[in-house]
Amino acid sequence: MENIHVYERNVYYYETDKMNVVHHSNYIRWFEEARVNFMEKVGYPYDLMESQGIMLPVLSAQCSYKNSVRFGDTILIYAAISKFNGFKMEVQYKICDLKTGELRSTGSTTHCFTDMSMKPLRIKKSYPKIFDIFNKVSPTKLF
Amino acid sequence: MENIHVYERNVYYYETDKMNVVHHSNYIRWFEEARVNFMEKVGYPYDLMESQGIMLPVLSAQCSYKNSVRFGDTILIYAAISKFNGFKMEVQYKICDLKTGELRSTGSTTHCFTDMSMKPLRIKKSYPKIFDIFNKVSPTKLF
Amino acid sequence: MENIHVYERNVYYYETDKMNVVHHSNYIRWFEEARVNFMEKVGYPYDLMESQGIMLPVLSAQCSYKNSVRFGDTILIYAAISKFNGFKMEVQYKICDLKTGELRSTGSTTHCFTDMSMKPLRIKKSYPKIFDIFNKVSPTKLF
Amino acid sequence: MENIHVYERNVYYYETDKMNVVHHSNYIRWFEEARVNFMEKVGYPYDLMESQGIMLPVLSAQCSYKNSVRFGDTILIYAAISKFNGFKMEVQYKICDLKTGELRSTGSTTHCFTDMSMKPLRIKKSYPKIFDIFNKVSPTKLF
Repeated sequence: MENIHVYERNVYYYETDKMNVVHHSNYIRWFEEARVNFMEKVGYPYDLMESQGIMLPVLSAQCSYKNSVRFGDTILIYAAISKFNGFKMEVQYKICDLKTGELRSTGSTTHCFTDMSMKPLRIKKSYPKIFDIFNKVSPTKLF
Repeated sequence: MENIHVYERNVYYYETDKMNVVHHSNYIRWFEEARVNFMEKVGYPYDLMESQGIMLPVLSAQCSYKNSVRFGDTILIYAAISKFNGFKMEVQYKICDLKTGELRSTGSTTHCFTDMSMKPLRIKKSYPKIFDIFNKVSPTKLF
Repeated sequence: MENIHVYERNVYYYETDKMNVVHHSNYIRWFEEARVNFMEKVGYPYDLMESQGIMLPVLSAQCSYKNSVRFGDTILIYAAISKFNGFKMEVQYKICDLKTGELRSTGSTTHCFTDMSMKPLRIKKSYPKIFDIFNKVSPTKLF
Repeated sequence: MENIHVYERNVYYYETDKMNVVHHSNYIRWFEEARVNFMEKVGYPYDLMESQGIMLPVLSAQCSYKNSVRFGDTILIYAAISKFNGFKMEVQYKICDLKTGELRSTGSTTHCFTDMSMKPLRIKKSYPKIFDIFNKVSPTKLF
């Protein structure tokens, strides 16, 4: 398992707007896709996590738009856990064009672990195996 | 209370696509907004319904696109319950431009009443008051 | 090239709603994804088409929801051109669960070919090669 | 005209996710709605701006999620131009619950003025009237 996860994605027509580029809100959704895919690859799929009564809501999101992404493009979304302490987590993202390698966007999201009623959880003691999964691949910075 | 409900809506920038018009999938979302607003106006808000353990999932949806809707437009969405028997329900919709009155779209959705585990409900006996609310404004056809 | 196209897709978290299933409007978007992917596979990618001054707006869309799709599911979207005359086109879709093969949804969209100002085009004479591409794989009915 | 703009909004059902709250990506869309509404109120509607060959793409977006927003809630989105120099612009946002006044989210977006080919514009000289409109209501900080 690599600490930096790569997720490939085609752009959908409905993600564009009248400016002829992908609407900026969709990058936040792509970050989520990459994050969910990352968790699956490290062996702890998001739906398994939720079935165990753990949620990972977003505390904050940030995105910088460097160059437009257009319909017809294929993008690579790099994701890495830049901070993790068993309580909070920061994930960093980088979006690049598949063909040219050019940078399109950087961003990050922060999260906390909670139970199903959104009460914060410290998973180090209560879920040591899950803690180890995230701890093993972090901290890894993309920028 | 009128049997035909009118719901006014501005077009949001993020609802457009690179064809410079509103993406067709959003009409289905507008129908839902009009339907939810309709239920509030007849005195049975959707969130109250869900809090009573009743859901109203969509069985089918249909939309005909007559003329494009664009950013900057304000639309009127007319909604009416065209069929209702306490078990299933059909809602019809008509979208018109506020300024010109021109028709933009017609459509319909069908629904059934279910409990929270998506098991069908016959509300005539179990929820007679709710039955009356929908029965009073139906059947009303828009086309 | 098969006349029936299969497109595989994971469900994204942001596509769910508070009913714990995929929101019904997203099926319309999935149909578009499958349609775009189909056109790429038959050798006439949608972005190439648009770069040649041809658009394929949606005239109508219809979807029947048979069984819920949930986060964690992988779906197969089958698409086929059920009607085509060089002027209008109907595409049919079937959504099945990858693991169980169970039917989740059927639907269809109708389209016409237009120029960039949305004026209808008859592509049989003006674009015979494009006509042949669609003609070769149609009509194929899914239901 | 007040320097702080207030925009009222009901939550739509399709904006929720399976966590039973509004999906975090929609806040970015709400910010856009509030921004567009703000520009209309100060007398320079976004569609007029675009018709004059000016675009205002997003350079970055940031959002902090303080408390969940749910279906059935009505929110107030406060928007203010916190930085402006005729070249770049920063807009700040605060989302509060209408009934309780409780803070739900804070955020900001940065923008630059460009022509239709996304080339940066300095509007102080080329569009002095537009410059004045934005200059008059800025800088106003929300936090």
